[in-house]
Amino acid sequence: MPTRSTSSEKGQIAKIAVVGAGLVGRAWAIVFARAGFDVTLWDGDERAIASSLEVIQARLEDLAKVGLVSDVQQVIRQIRPTSSLESALADAHYVQENLPEILDVKRAIHAELDALAPANAIVASSTSSIPASAFTESLKGRTRCLVAHPVNPPYLIPLVELCGAPWTAPDIVTRTRALLERAGQVPITIARELHGFVLNRLQGALVNEAFRLVEDGYVSPEDLDKTIAHGLGLRWSFMGPFETIDLNAPGGVRDYCERYGALYYDIARQQADPRRWSGVVDLIEAERRKTLPAEKLAERQTWRDRRLMALAAHKKAMEGDEEE
Amino acid sequence: MPTRSTSSEKGQIAKIAVVGAGLVGRAWAIVFARAGFDVTLWDGDERAIASSLEVIQARLEDLAKVGLVSDVQQVIRQIRPTSSLESALADAHYVQENLPEILDVKRAIHAELDALAPANAIVASSTSSIPASAFTESLKGRTRCLVAHPVNPPYLIPLVELCGAPWTAPDIVTRTRALLERAGQVPITIARELHGFVLNRLQGALVNEAFRLVEDGYVSPEDLDKTIAHGLGLRWSFMGPFETIDLNAPGGVRDYCERYGALYYDIARQQADPRRWSGVVDLIEAERRKTLPAEKLAERQTWRDRRLMALAAHKKAMEGDEEE
Repeated sequence: MPTRSTSSEKGQIAKIAVVGAGLVGRAWAIVFARAGFDVTLWDGDERAIASSLEVIQARLEDLAKVGLVSDVQQVIRQIRPTSSLESALADAHYVQENLPEILDVKRAIHAELDALAPANAIVASSTSSIPASAFTESLKGRTRCLVAHPVNPPYLIPLVELCGAPWTAPDIVTRTRALLERAGQVPITIARELHGFVLNRLQGALVNEAFRLVEDGYVSPEDLDKTIAHGLGLRWSFMGPFETIDLNAPGGVRDYCERYGALYYDIARQQADPRRWSGVVDLIEAERRKTLPAEKLAERQTWRDRRLMALAAHKKAMEGDEEE
Repeated sequence: MPTRSTSSEKGQIAKIAVVGAGLVGRAWAIVFARAGFDVTLWDGDERAIASSLEVIQARLEDLAKVGLVSDVQQVIRQIRPTSSLESALADAHYVQENLPEILDVKRAIHAELDALAPANAIVASSTSSIPASAFTESLKGRTRCLVAHPVNPPYLIPLVELCGAPWTAPDIVTRTRALLERAGQVPITIARELHGFVLNRLQGALVNEAFRLVEDGYVSPEDLDKTIAHGLGLRWSFMGPFETIDLNAPGGVRDYCERYGALYYDIARQQADPRRWSGVVDLIEAERRKTLPAEKLAERQTWRDRRLMALAAHKKAMEGDEEE
């Protein structure tokens, strides 16, 4: 279970450079500063830098209301925004890059990071879709580069997917994992490069079946959503699918596989027809807009963020109880 | 959002016969009695009937501790255990059958239920794996029969999958849906018979990909579980996959499909090789037993049930806030 580090437990790695002060970069700054690390927050856009602490403070105040941050001003003091990349990287032990998902942008910034960051610094990218090999191959320091893909927002959803390029030093992955655990996150390690990493492949498997069931007329989009939100999704908010099936047969996971393996193989065979979503997107868009008109999307996103925050507070309380 | 009915809102349908007093039958008795319905609870095993109220009371006291039941004795008074099937079915408006998942057992009990239940009673089966057509075809009252498949335990996980046979009257499905909503459950309707219904097909899609990723050496079973429990599963505990993607692109679900449809189609093509679990079950069993020795399975199941109960209380509080 994740625990928050305090400054006194920081150990060797203490200085974090967050590159890019958009939504993802600001969220990473909150994660690291909340854990007691010193954070520099860089952006090429002076306006983004000028407004960053104000935006971060508003998020921190929301978190403080539900007990996910204890001292807002203390966290703010850990973050130093700057528009000088040299200054942001000076003395950094770990760099988290968050620029747009465009290959040329990634290549250009990683060339700069490689030139400017201290030789022993780890350089991680938040990219969700570009493998590290695509933007680090020609770098002198390519063995210290990897992907550390967060879920939005990482201060509420702690999972981080770590995935190196073929040349990434194993020790870099190990050290990043330890660092992120000290920051209160839950890192996982992907052994080699993989399209969509793990989280989006799992989401894709389920969502593709959801589209298929609606396209074939078995269930409405609204009822399909209820199946997860009031059924299957409950256990998965605190334990994974293997633990779920391990606890769902008297003799554990092997027993479960013997009982239900044939059923799930049959289902897999019925799901082996890859389909594009284009055949059914009109229907789902129409149903969603009946449930939630377009002009209410932003309001519902605020609702989702409030629910996520309350759930994070609930989980923290439950996991605190278990550690006692 | 589900709300609990009180007796004064019961309307027409008030008397429920629960057939089978095992784990699932007792849980249904709790669901209906908690909502204020009169419940008869039948089992052919006298010992099961004799101990049923004691076991139910223990569950109700657990629920009362977290605010999911207000008056344990009031709920207990709504339940009348009996070993006479005639007595259990007399005056019933709705029958929920929960006998073992064996086709001959289902056929035999449904023949009895059809003969003994009042002509206007709805007859539902909790089966998770047998379509209603397989055990109702020859019944005189086959148009009133359907599957109402709960998730265990239904007093904590409200989803119920409704699926009729080809001859089930549409009105029966509609009335069952309304009844279960009044009982505080979240029913969904499956338009025609489907192997695994909806929930297990969605679970299968994700779990089959989980087995595939472990078998191919991309991720450990433990890290895969973390991906759900600390990542993907959080939002899904309060909203479904369509709402999730609808809120994850500025322009809603159509916009999401345009941005990411190609990625998810690529993923679907890589997931189109149905595999049996037998190639990897040894590895997953070994890893699970390192994390959780076999002798601790029961203790961990108790932990899971406590977490589910706390989550149900959390969700009830959140949804109560929203209704205000």
